[in-house]
Amino acid sequence: MNSILAKELISNFLNEDIGTGDLSTNLVFNDNLKGEGYFLAKDDGIVCGTQIIALAYSVLSNDFKVTVYKNDGEFVKKGEHIAKVEGKITTLLTAERVILNLMQLMSGIATMGYKLVKALDDSSIKIVDTRKTHPGLRMFEKYAVTCGGCFNHRYALYDGVMLKDNHIAFAGGITKAVTDVKAKLGHMVKVEVETETREQVIEAVNAGADVIMFDNRSPEEIKEFQKLVPPNIITEASGGISIDTIGNFKGCGVNVISVGSLTNGVKPLDISFLSVEAIKV
Amino acid sequence: MNSILAKELISNFLNEDIGTGDLSTNLVFNDNLKGEGYFLAKDDGIVCGTQIIALAYSVLSNDFKVTVYKNDGEFVKKGEHIAKVEGKITTLLTAERVILNLMQLMSGIATMGYKLVKALDDSSIKIVDTRKTHPGLRMFEKYAVTCGGCFNHRYALYDGVMLKDNHIAFAGGITKAVTDVKAKLGHMVKVEVETETREQVIEAVNAGADVIMFDNRSPEEIKEFQKLVPPNIITEASGGISIDTIGNFKGCGVNVISVGSLTNGVKPLDISFLSVEAIKV
Amino acid sequence: MNSILAKELISNFLNEDIGTGDLSTNLVFNDNLKGEGYFLAKDDGIVCGTQIIALAYSVLSNDFKVTVYKNDGEFVKKGEHIAKVEGKITTLLTAERVILNLMQLMSGIATMGYKLVKALDDSSIKIVDTRKTHPGLRMFEKYAVTCGGCFNHRYALYDGVMLKDNHIAFAGGITKAVTDVKAKLGHMVKVEVETETREQVIEAVNAGADVIMFDNRSPEEIKEFQKLVPPNIITEASGGISIDTIGNFKGCGVNVISVGSLTNGVKPLDISFLSVEAIKV
Amino acid sequence: MNSILAKELISNFLNEDIGTGDLSTNLVFNDNLKGEGYFLAKDDGIVCGTQIIALAYSVLSNDFKVTVYKNDGEFVKKGEHIAKVEGKITTLLTAERVILNLMQLMSGIATMGYKLVKALDDSSIKIVDTRKTHPGLRMFEKYAVTCGGCFNHRYALYDGVMLKDNHIAFAGGITKAVTDVKAKLGHMVKVEVETETREQVIEAVNAGADVIMFDNRSPEEIKEFQKLVPPNIITEASGGISIDTIGNFKGCGVNVISVGSLTNGVKPLDISFLSVEAIKV
Amino acid sequence: MNSILAKELISNFLNEDIGTGDLSTNLVFNDNLKGEGYFLAKDDGIVCGTQIIALAYSVLSNDFKVTVYKNDGEFVKKGEHIAKVEGKITTLLTAERVILNLMQLMSGIATMGYKLVKALDDSSIKIVDTRKTHPGLRMFEKYAVTCGGCFNHRYALYDGVMLKDNHIAFAGGITKAVTDVKAKLGHMVKVEVETETREQVIEAVNAGADVIMFDNRSPEEIKEFQKLVPPNIITEASGGISIDTIGNFKGCGVNVISVGSLTNGVKPLDISFLSVEAIKV
Amino acid sequence: MNSILAKELISNFLNEDIGTGDLSTNLVFNDNLKGEGYFLAKDDGIVCGTQIIALAYSVLSNDFKVTVYKNDGEFVKKGEHIAKVEGKITTLLTAERVILNLMQLMSGIATMGYKLVKALDDSSIKIVDTRKTHPGLRMFEKYAVTCGGCFNHRYALYDGVMLKDNHIAFAGGITKAVTDVKAKLGHMVKVEVETETREQVIEAVNAGADVIMFDNRSPEEIKEFQKLVPPNIITEASGGISIDTIGNFKGCGVNVISVGSLTNGVKPLDISFLSVEAIKV
Repeated sequence: MNSILAKELISNFLNEDIGTGDLSTNLVFNDNLKGEGYFLAKDDGIVCGTQIIALAYSVLSNDFKVTVYKNDGEFVKKGEHIAKVEGKITTLLTAERVILNLMQLMSGIATMGYKLVKALDDSSIKIVDTRKTHPGLRMFEKYAVTCGGCFNHRYALYDGVMLKDNHIAFAGGITKAVTDVKAKLGHMVKVEVETETREQVIEAVNAGADVIMFDNRSPEEIKEFQKLVPPNIITEASGGISIDTIGNFKGCGVNVISVGSLTNGVKPLDISFLSVEAIKV
Repeated sequence: MNSILAKELISNFLNEDIGTGDLSTNLVFNDNLKGEGYFLAKDDGIVCGTQIIALAYSVLSNDFKVTVYKNDGEFVKKGEHIAKVEGKITTLLTAERVILNLMQLMSGIATMGYKLVKALDDSSIKIVDTRKTHPGLRMFEKYAVTCGGCFNHRYALYDGVMLKDNHIAFAGGITKAVTDVKAKLGHMVKVEVETETREQVIEAVNAGADVIMFDNRSPEEIKEFQKLVPPNIITEASGGISIDTIGNFKGCGVNVISVGSLTNGVKPLDISFLSVEAIKV
Repeated sequence: MNSILAKELISNFLNEDIGTGDLSTNLVFNDNLKGEGYFLAKDDGIVCGTQIIALAYSVLSNDFKVTVYKNDGEFVKKGEHIAKVEGKITTLLTAERVILNLMQLMSGIATMGYKLVKALDDSSIKIVDTRKTHPGLRMFEKYAVTCGGCFNHRYALYDGVMLKDNHIAFAGGITKAVTDVKAKLGHMVKVEVETETREQVIEAVNAGADVIMFDNRSPEEIKEFQKLVPPNIITEASGGISIDTIGNFKGCGVNVISVGSLTNGVKPLDISFLSVEAIKV
Repeated sequence: MNSILAKELISNFLNEDIGTGDLSTNLVFNDNLKGEGYFLAKDDGIVCGTQIIALAYSVLSNDFKVTVYKNDGEFVKKGEHIAKVEGKITTLLTAERVILNLMQLMSGIATMGYKLVKALDDSSIKIVDTRKTHPGLRMFEKYAVTCGGCFNHRYALYDGVMLKDNHIAFAGGITKAVTDVKAKLGHMVKVEVETETREQVIEAVNAGADVIMFDNRSPEEIKEFQKLVPPNIITEASGGISIDTIGNFKGCGVNVISVGSLTNGVKPLDISFLSVEAIKV
Repeated sequence: MNSILAKELISNFLNEDIGTGDLSTNLVFNDNLKGEGYFLAKDDGIVCGTQIIALAYSVLSNDFKVTVYKNDGEFVKKGEHIAKVEGKITTLLTAERVILNLMQLMSGIATMGYKLVKALDDSSIKIVDTRKTHPGLRMFEKYAVTCGGCFNHRYALYDGVMLKDNHIAFAGGITKAVTDVKAKLGHMVKVEVETETREQVIEAVNAGADVIMFDNRSPEEIKEFQKLVPPNIITEASGGISIDTIGNFKGCGVNVISVGSLTNGVKPLDISFLSVEAIKV
Repeated sequence: MNSILAKELISNFLNEDIGTGDLSTNLVFNDNLKGEGYFLAKDDGIVCGTQIIALAYSVLSNDFKVTVYKNDGEFVKKGEHIAKVEGKITTLLTAERVILNLMQLMSGIATMGYKLVKALDDSSIKIVDTRKTHPGLRMFEKYAVTCGGCFNHRYALYDGVMLKDNHIAFAGGITKAVTDVKAKLGHMVKVEVETETREQVIEAVNAGADVIMFDNRSPEEIKEFQKLVPPNIITEASGGISIDTIGNFKGCGVNVISVGSLTNGVKPLDISFLSVEAIKV
């Protein structure tokens, strides 16, 4: 992650919730009062987003301390503490909801990644994400994917070429599309081609695709298609594969499986914030 | 929604995905080519976010047309068209993913709201959301809640007072907390007090709370508590209530039920974009 | 106030004045030179905005100290020191004008609030502000209102419903307008209805308004109208009430009086900045 | 004014007031409903800020028409229409308050400028503003100054050098200060020197000041000082001069008089918005 | 390019130059006056940045027309018109300098690219840029590179891995560095390794580098190194190669040559703006 | 320079290069690893931009130290260290390119300024810059100009009036143009008039121009024109004067020479960053 961008975004998120002021906290608590609290797992899963805590507090105050007990990517059990925080009670309470909303989402994604890896049970295949992320949160979600043991597909429209059916149709076929793109593209960007048939796979191989996607193909079809692709070309299985079906792809020989539900509609990991009673100073 | 803010946010979301340029689209398609496409429901549910389409296109181009077939709040069946769009094929393809990501989320929330209303089956109770929204997306999600037949709780920290256990403990009791807050608060802001016991409910009533929350109480307890509260004070049931349990609260007499899972971890409604083959001009 | 937003705004205000650089200060002073100075009241009034000093300096430098002698809401006499500041002489001089412009405005509003409370001399009535604030400065001005012993009306268009004549006319009457709005509005937002006649007051009461405004009514009319309103509905007197006329409303029984001139066209409190001659290091 | 910057600022101002949505307007009015309205003077004065209307509407809608009856700088009488507007009723109502707040302020400043010119009654002297403007609003206020027949002093810290007592003391005298600054300054920037005594005026003349300010001097002193200054150096009277005292400076021979109260604490011109009853379409 | 981002940046650039207003233009010209003008080449070269004209005008006005005579990438001769523009004379003059500054830079880069291609005279080798761009202008400069017949290296730190000496030293050798990175990296990102010796080249090949850079190697060394690299790995010559020396690399067999001076310190193409005398309307 | 604005811009520049993360650095280095490095001159010239280092690091980290050996404006020889830096190795590597790109540009401009001063060899003439700067970088470039011993012309369109041929033509002559502008302009802004002929010079003098530009005139013509201008009016030679021709203007009597190539198309000073091998902690 880029810490500059992360801090800017978290500052925006806090402004979304605080607006012109946290009425409840400002009207009840003295701004000098110190307190402490704990981020507590209320379910089993993979922790992700612990750095969000300090980033959020740093936007509100210079005076706080965060002690992380479970690092990003570690497994946490229900009831365990993830982090301890100390600072102004106003800072702790005002930032609570935004931190939880983001950390629960990130931990939910990391946990889903962890489960997908287990369900697939094939270390020769990388599980990757898609662009089905929540608008404005992609950097956090793509990072969470890696904390769960999965990998990032292209980040966005700017860092990889994906030739889908409409690109191919307009260009006039896979060969033409790949050739046209490669004639203008820099040498650091990979070109992936979507295929559905044996003929398309062969054409993509010959056209010089860097990555070939088998779109909505069964494990059996993939095994057959895989034979057509030389080892220096990466293959990807894609299309509706989820935690329920990914196990079927074990041993199919593909290099990469992309899973939309790794980030899309994921159940957040339940985390709560417990603030220990503050001592009046 | 505020259309100025909506457009600014959608512009940011597009920039997140486009970055320095949509390589695939820019390298394949002529920027003058016109095309058309359809947003298509791939599951049953409540449509929400149709205005996102025109807002996103307007950031990219002046030359497009959107025809909405299903308005926000309407039920759509799997296979039905939600909207037809016409414009530059580059605009259509470049904006596709961001529009889908946002519209699927909003429609998923609206659909969950619709299901909650059905599951509760008690028109005397308003179902409301919480602050458990995706950071940066609250305005879109709070709007989606209303499209599904539910209502908005306070928007954020700035437009309502919620006195929770730590506020009350610090102030020295419910009476003191409410009195202190009301002494400084404007007359347009409501004060809600979290309660768990009969005694707390009575104290909140006497202290002048505008809204009393019954935190993690059973329908039976709520029926009892409800008797303690005069009709001009609003009551709210809160805490872990979901689509699976909300039916138990039918007839319990409470005014409002808040449901975190209305926005938190909701399954997006499956919507896809079909672009009709463009005619080369 | 939200300190994140306050700092962002003050940073913008400094940029407005500094632009590409403070020519006079940069060309004369060594950037390492330390100095000290005093913010001095040049008139009697209520101090407001002392936190602006540290916020402004913190944007320019890490190396400064502010000692506040008069807290926000305290009365200051002409000739008294409000705060002492120490830091780089360049920081002190460059930020001087922006701090003064904002602190004078805020203190002017607080002072006007203080005078209104005295002039009304009726502690059963809350004096509240309006939305007649300087664009971009509302958070600072609404805060200043509270420092002068007055209260905030709704903050803006998003946190309260105000049904005026054109809303009512379009909806087809007060009853219809209130009913329509309440059918869609969350339970935390209050609905205020503007009334001018006895009939309208009665209709607003029956329609379920949370707040009823008596628009441009005399104290005598208000006394009569007040009898029509049950105690759980808040009443507000509004329309052209100023420091010169507010005393007439003493004892009229209304709950709230809103005063546009509390923020609109207020005379700033005269405050100056005295920098003690810097010691060359 | 810079129209790009003006539109950005007005967009921010609207967001300050609209936030996540104009509840009253959105819940009552159909977004397609058209209406019209008038901006009406409720007091005599100089109109300023008519372009704000179209700028504000253009941020909210593409579909509106503004007809200006009184241009910036023109005198308007109480009861006269300043402009007629047509568009969506939601646009008209949502933008009303922000437009009025800004236009009233600008017209108030223009009117004060007009009155100062009349009160001085000496066309050989330019009346100029100061940096005592509302933070964030300087461009609008400096423009308003010119609409009232007055002129702009330096805009900010970046476009003119003003050597005050502390600059001079630190540099070691006027001669040294002016010499130091001129040795590094570009040829397009003027240097003004603050003086209080005959000796200082002479020193400033000899040092090569472009502008010499007579700080807190009486008209009689100014007449004397003026004799010491050759005609190619501009002179400025400054310090506590207001609408009540400016007449005393008639004929004193100074080139420029700066007046803080031209922008600081000005009474806004009373303008209201009348929306004609909308026709339901 | 991303047109949203381009417009935002150009708006910032105009604000940098216009600030609070274009004094000369505003004080002389009536804002309704129409005029026309021409962008004229004052030297031979490749045109780039013609879309900047309309983008800049669109920020200032809705009322203009741009007719492009020479498209991006076309050769223009000294004295030829690049584009004709019509619109408000104030728009034309206010935007002139910013457009010229950007278009001259972009055309200068495109022209340098064109000259490098000619000087190399080997179509089997792609000439690519580096990250030596002007801060804030990379998107415009990378686009200009492609208009001159050259290609883009990685855009930035986020879309490609480049393992330099310090990365390799810290990791403990090329093999370890590549292995570590590939274990965590997504399948769409390429890994380039910097090498200087025969041994390093062999190690990089075996480690699985996607791209191997020959850092500061002579054409003769490159011919030798090239033999060590299988055809599916891309090779790059880098280090101090310029328009004066690139010809020596003809036929050396490398796939890519990167040239810092393609964007760094490039001579802008001389373009001027001629405004035809406006007709007073 | 304005340090607030400088930091904001540098933060944007870093975001341009880092985007969603520095892949190479993040995947190889532990974020806690400390290192040190040197900015090293690879050519002779004037140093400029040393404050950029700390500004860039401060955006990324709180934990670093910069020791500057050569201050802005000092001459550095090839091989000399400009500054030593210590901090996290990730901070040092991630910020390297942006700092170098900016510091090389600024030092290149300062060096060109230094060379122009030497080439002119006439201390009675100030060499000034123009508005031919890189969009978005003007503040940095104008500052660099002063570090090389040259001076700033007007900063932008807002802080000086320049009447060129089209302004004059439209107004109806120099006298009319100057008179019109002066009638509305504040007393702190200078008016410069472009002239080409003896008649125009005389007219500009009589019209009251503050600065008269001799556009594209030879040194001999300038000597003649100079006789027509009284000493309190500043004169400027402009038009195609460069390092190759400026020597011809020695002794011509003009006050100011403006040189576009002082900022336009300048060769950056070659500076590199050497990071000393980090110690694993």
